[in-house]
Order: sequence, then structure tokens, then C-alpha cells
Amino acid sequence: MTIAKTPKPPYVAVIFTTIRMPGDEGYEAMSAEMVALGSRQRGFLGIESARDADGLGITVSYWATLDDARAWKAVAEHRGAQALGRERWYRAYKTRIATVERDYGFERP
Amino acid sequence: MTIAKTPKPPYVAVIFTTIRMPGDEGYEAMSAEMVALGSRQRGFLGIESARDADGLGITVSYWATLDDARAWKAVAEHRGAQALGRERWYRAYKTRIATVERDYGFERP
Repeated sequence: MTIAKTPKPPYVAVIFTTIRMPGDEGYEAMSAEMVALGSRQRGFLGIESARDADGLGITVSYWATLDDARAWKAVAEHRGAQALGRERWYRAYKTRIATVERDYGFERP
Repeated sequence: MTIAKTPKPPYVAVIFTTIRMPGDEGYEAMSAEMVALGSRQRGFLGIESARDADGLGITVSYWATLDDARAWKAVAEHRGAQALGRERWYRAYKTRIATVERDYGFERP
């Protein structure tokens, strides 16, 4: 994983914060599948993901518009993964849909 | 770390994605200090943080208003930490300032 190469704002960030249940239960395979499928959706700009040793994870996906983010939420395979997330993988999660208004960065020369 | 108990939107999210240099070099102590200091600033709503084994980290801090987020960026101790971040701790980072417009969640009963 690396820092997403997003365009100049405005664009949309979907911040997905999760607490995992113990055990894999097919999670890693589905997670990779959803990243691959999501990356091919209209308006996809990039994704960043990190999970702490203690089980808290943050995944931020970036989208051109709110409609693009909404459309990805409604994709059938993604809906299936969301249901499995509630059944098996997550103790809790929170999804926040936000509009990025400004950004800046640093990269070591 | 846990999922931040943020109020009903709108509120502000500052998404800080980083790639660490190897070695601690005082990072963990300063990181804890900045979380403690940031939490006492006006408009602070919560913070979530995760770092992958591979070095990518995502920290999202939540604020009542854009002005509150801006004011925290300008606090002298925080500016000092930002400078050390560029000198010692980060290979690269990106900061994105966003307005959260909608959120929803799940918690296992």
C-alpha cells in the first residue's frame, strides 16, 4: 500500500473505520477482491488502508463524485461483502462520506 | 484505539496518511503527546489511527469546524512536531481536509 495519487480537490473520501473479529474467515481474500473490483468502478481515484496490530483498521477510498461513491456501495458483489462483514468479520464499523476541500503533502527528496 | 464517537454530520475530518522512516527517533513519545495536546483543543471531536506492519499509517482527526482544524495546525508545539516529521519521521505524507456529510455504522449486539 502507498499514498493514493489523488487529483486536485474537490473529490470524495469514504472513510471506513473497522474493528475486526478474531480469525480470517475468508476476510483477506474478499478484501483483495473488493479492492480489485472497486478499482474498476467509475470515478475511482485511489485507496489507502492500514490495520493496527490491535485490530482497528482504517480504509479510505477516494472518488470523483458522491454519485460514484454511492454507485459502488450498491454494486451487488459489494453488497454481498457488506452483509458478510456484519455477519462475520466486523465487531463494529463506521462509514463517513466526506468531500475533500484541500490537500497538501510532503515527499522526501 | 477505538472508533471515534463523532456527532451528527456535518463535521470536519483531517485525513493524515503517512509512510514512516525506519526507527523510532522519538516518534512514539511525540505522537502520544500530540494526541493528548490535540484532544484539548477547541472543536476536537475524536481521533482514529492505524499503522500497517509495512509502515503505511492513517490518522483521522475530527473537528467541529474548518477553523478548529486550522487552529490546531498552527499551535506552536504542533508546528514543531510537523517540522520533526519532515526532518526525521516521515518518508512521505499527505494531509486531506474534508467535510463529512453523512455517516452510518454498525455495532455487534
